[in-house]
Amino acid sequence: MLTNTRHTRIEWCDCDPAGIIFYPRYFEMFDTSTTVLIERALGMSKFEYLKAYDFAGHPLVEARARFRLPTRFGDEVAIATALVECGRSSFKVEHRLTRAGVLAVEGFETRVWVIRLADDPQRIRSQPMPRQVVERFKNGNAAIDSLPSS
Amino acid sequence: MLTNTRHTRIEWCDCDPAGIIFYPRYFEMFDTSTTVLIERALGMSKFEYLKAYDFAGHPLVEARARFRLPTRFGDEVAIATALVECGRSSFKVEHRLTRAGVLAVEGFETRVWVIRLADDPQRIRSQPMPRQVVERFKNGNAAIDSLPSS
Amino acid sequence: MLTNTRHTRIEWCDCDPAGIIFYPRYFEMFDTSTTVLIERALGMSKFEYLKAYDFAGHPLVEARARFRLPTRFGDEVAIATALVECGRSSFKVEHRLTRAGVLAVEGFETRVWVIRLADDPQRIRSQPMPRQVVERFKNGNAAIDSLPSS
Amino acid sequence: MLTNTRHTRIEWCDCDPAGIIFYPRYFEMFDTSTTVLIERALGMSKFEYLKAYDFAGHPLVEARARFRLPTRFGDEVAIATALVECGRSSFKVEHRLTRAGVLAVEGFETRVWVIRLADDPQRIRSQPMPRQVVERFKNGNAAIDSLPSS
Repeated sequence: MLTNTRHTRIEWCDCDPAGIIFYPRYFEMFDTSTTVLIERALGMSKFEYLKAYDFAGHPLVEARARFRLPTRFGDEVAIATALVECGRSSFKVEHRLTRAGVLAVEGFETRVWVIRLADDPQRIRSQPMPRQVVERFKNGNAAIDSLPSS
Repeated sequence: MLTNTRHTRIEWCDCDPAGIIFYPRYFEMFDTSTTVLIERALGMSKFEYLKAYDFAGHPLVEARARFRLPTRFGDEVAIATALVECGRSSFKVEHRLTRAGVLAVEGFETRVWVIRLADDPQRIRSQPMPRQVVERFKNGNAAIDSLPSS
Repeated sequence: MLTNTRHTRIEWCDCDPAGIIFYPRYFEMFDTSTTVLIERALGMSKFEYLKAYDFAGHPLVEARARFRLPTRFGDEVAIATALVECGRSSFKVEHRLTRAGVLAVEGFETRVWVIRLADDPQRIRSQPMPRQVVERFKNGNAAIDSLPSS
Repeated sequence: MLTNTRHTRIEWCDCDPAGIIFYPRYFEMFDTSTTVLIERALGMSKFEYLKAYDFAGHPLVEARARFRLPTRFGDEVAIATALVECGRSSFKVEHRLTRAGVLAVEGFETRVWVIRLADDPQRIRSQPMPRQVVERFKNGNAAIDSLPSS
């Protein structure tokens, strides 16, 4: 399975007048974690992979999170991310955010591969993922670790 | 049932390099819509109701959204919000964001009423909601419309 | 002079653990106000005017703000915006945010008209503004009010 | 002089439909950099120093930035921060954000030390900084490096 863990800190700018994180910030963090996971799988930055595979991105069709413990500014957290399902044109990603090893938030994303319409580049539609991408998504970390970095 | 509809516009600052809204912004909009709904139910601003009922807020234990159609900067949208369930210390809110009458996003929130711990005001815990709040949450719009504004 | 005033409310999501607005949110609000001003001057939405004049936007080369009074969630504010200077490829905009008629924040922006490089659409460079845009920017509100809306 | 450099990456969530960073995000980054600088000077986290010195924070009275080169998602940047002036109740901080060693953005902040009013904790006012804080702000890195970490 394709997994990655990244470490970050909850900052003042992430928190609301209750002194705890304003929850949409978690979705921002999860979005970055998904990007990092795919960058790792494809061996290039998001800027590069959008160009290399000529697509518009992987927006969400569904997002969900369960908030178990609040976090606040100064908290060091780890976000463990896994690609848990890979279809033809969509895939699912899960995130587990922990503080001092204790689960604080779980996140669940369903994303879809989209391209721009040829006759109206402002509009997007889903499209099957390239075969090579599906393979890398399904092969998980072991395969990636054996690839030359690009 | 307690409901409210608010109109807003998707702005440049809400959108990402794909040209469509960056989805965590929807959760920010839903949070504001829930605030407006409760302000209407309780007949005062959030700043006032946090003081009047001496509590720390109504953070989320679960948030979910389904994204059906993308929106982009300049889109005028309506967010219809309803309080759909009210327990002892938690309540559920649903949002339907439409553009030109077409459903674009559905949002689902489970929130909990929290107070600060007396011996450690930096920590929060859930607590049963005041009877008056539960009544106003359950009585819906009709009751509110008949109340004198405070 | 080209001016516009828009009314908005400081929301919970704009505020930090001190209970007051987190100041970068003001710059977001000012950015939206500038967009609204230009939309009014050109008689079309930003989405439309980027296409109509085939350019990449009007990013900032300098931004500045003076914070005189804090605002907090629930505060109704007005943002008065004026285009105060118009050069060949750049223009200056000023914002005055008031609460209950009292000045709370002043904002100052210098923006530049940019296009994408033909041989590398990911890169941008400044370019003289179209003559029609300069005229509309310089003619101010009176001229706009006399134009048919597009 | 008190200085600190921190490394971060411009993310998708920081960028707008032009594909470059939405400039208020820089002010968020600068705010975090200032926090890190003060944490280093005082030898404790912001959460801790707000409690230890019993104050409400160090909001801005003026913020300014010059944007020299755009950055975009995936860009690794360094933010060098320096406390350049320290008065009785206010201080000035400057930031230089570079990408690959090239200056992209300069930021300038004037901040004030504030406490909550005893008779109305929702309101804040400026107050002279504690002597120990001023000393640490003025003594710069050398003094800090020789202190035991708290």
